[in-house]
Amino acid sequence: MQTRSEETRSRLLEAGMREFSRQGFVSASVSEICSTAGVSKGAFYHHFESKHALFLALMESWLAALDHSFQQARLKFSSVPEAVMQMARSAGFIFGRTDVRLSLLLEFWIQAQHDPTIWQAAVEPYRRYQRYFSSLVKTGVEAGEFQPVNPETAARLLVGLALGLLMQALFDPGGAHWSDEVVTSVDLVMHCLKSSEL
Amino acid sequence: MQTRSEETRSRLLEAGMREFSRQGFVSASVSEICSTAGVSKGAFYHHFESKHALFLALMESWLAALDHSFQQARLKFSSVPEAVMQMARSAGFIFGRTDVRLSLLLEFWIQAQHDPTIWQAAVEPYRRYQRYFSSLVKTGVEAGEFQPVNPETAARLLVGLALGLLMQALFDPGGAHWSDEVVTSVDLVMHCLKSSEL
Repeated sequence: MQTRSEETRSRLLEAGMREFSRQGFVSASVSEICSTAGVSKGAFYHHFESKHALFLALMESWLAALDHSFQQARLKFSSVPEAVMQMARSAGFIFGRTDVRLSLLLEFWIQAQHDPTIWQAAVEPYRRYQRYFSSLVKTGVEAGEFQPVNPETAARLLVGLALGLLMQALFDPGGAHWSDEVVTSVDLVMHCLKSSEL
Repeated sequence: MQTRSEETRSRLLEAGMREFSRQGFVSASVSEICSTAGVSKGAFYHHFESKHALFLALMESWLAALDHSFQQARLKFSSVPEAVMQMARSAGFIFGRTDVRLSLLLEFWIQAQHDPTIWQAAVEPYRRYQRYFSSLVKTGVEAGEFQPVNPETAARLLVGLALGLLMQALFDPGGAHWSDEVVTSVDLVMHCLKSSEL
């Protein structure tokens, strides 16, 4: 159960997500976020030092949800290819709310161009996912589940593909059923990595 | 040989690219572009109706260069897998000038969020490349060069991968030798599509 303080924090994150998506980071106002969340300014500054801090916290909570779904997938399936397929299915939640979340992601990248702390928060996760999938593929190769591919290359393929599909979903929401596309393309990559002719 | 008018246009495009990358679309000034190009305002408006028109022309000229390199690759190699590998090698020129071109690309996507004509110019190429690679893979399947994969899925993999690597190169220029990464990952995909176990 959430304490009242945790509930206030959640409400501020949700309101911040809407406000940043709608107004962009620069124009977003703390007053408006507080008003949407039904929270006083005092309570806002109790939880977040600044608008900037709320923005970073939003990204952290998003990535934490993604990490959690990856961990669950890994726990559920001992086979690497099956775990990766489960990750692809559960990552669909990112594509589920294209209206708000994806435009927030773009806003995050825009701000990263101007702000070193945001840049760090934007770039570090890619490097981390690159290392994560590289190590996962290495495990799969050692277990004989994948052919002896270069784990770095295979990880680049997976991370690049995920990011590219995210961009396409952002710009062309009606162009495909994106959460299905993620599953279908990752399935193709998994079949590839298993093939003995590689 | 370029006529004087063509040369003026080229100089304006080059100066516009620098100014948009440096200042962003909103802050970029026509005066500054003219001054960098060594061209009068009259000459600017002879070639472009507005800053907006120059911006769109820049994207068009960029995509035209990419299309040209794809056509050359297709003419040079009758084999689809070899043509695609040549495309991957020649697309390296996009990654060659990460300083200016890539930040311009991001600027283009940002503006696309606010402007329907730019959105159209940003989205239409992805759909076009998706159709192009889909038809290319279909040809490869019919020629027995690829396994009977779903051409739409294979094209989504290639286009998604290219876009994802472009994003990574944009945010993490020092994270890898990106033009090599494009070639290595596309090579892996080509091996996959050829594999009889798919």
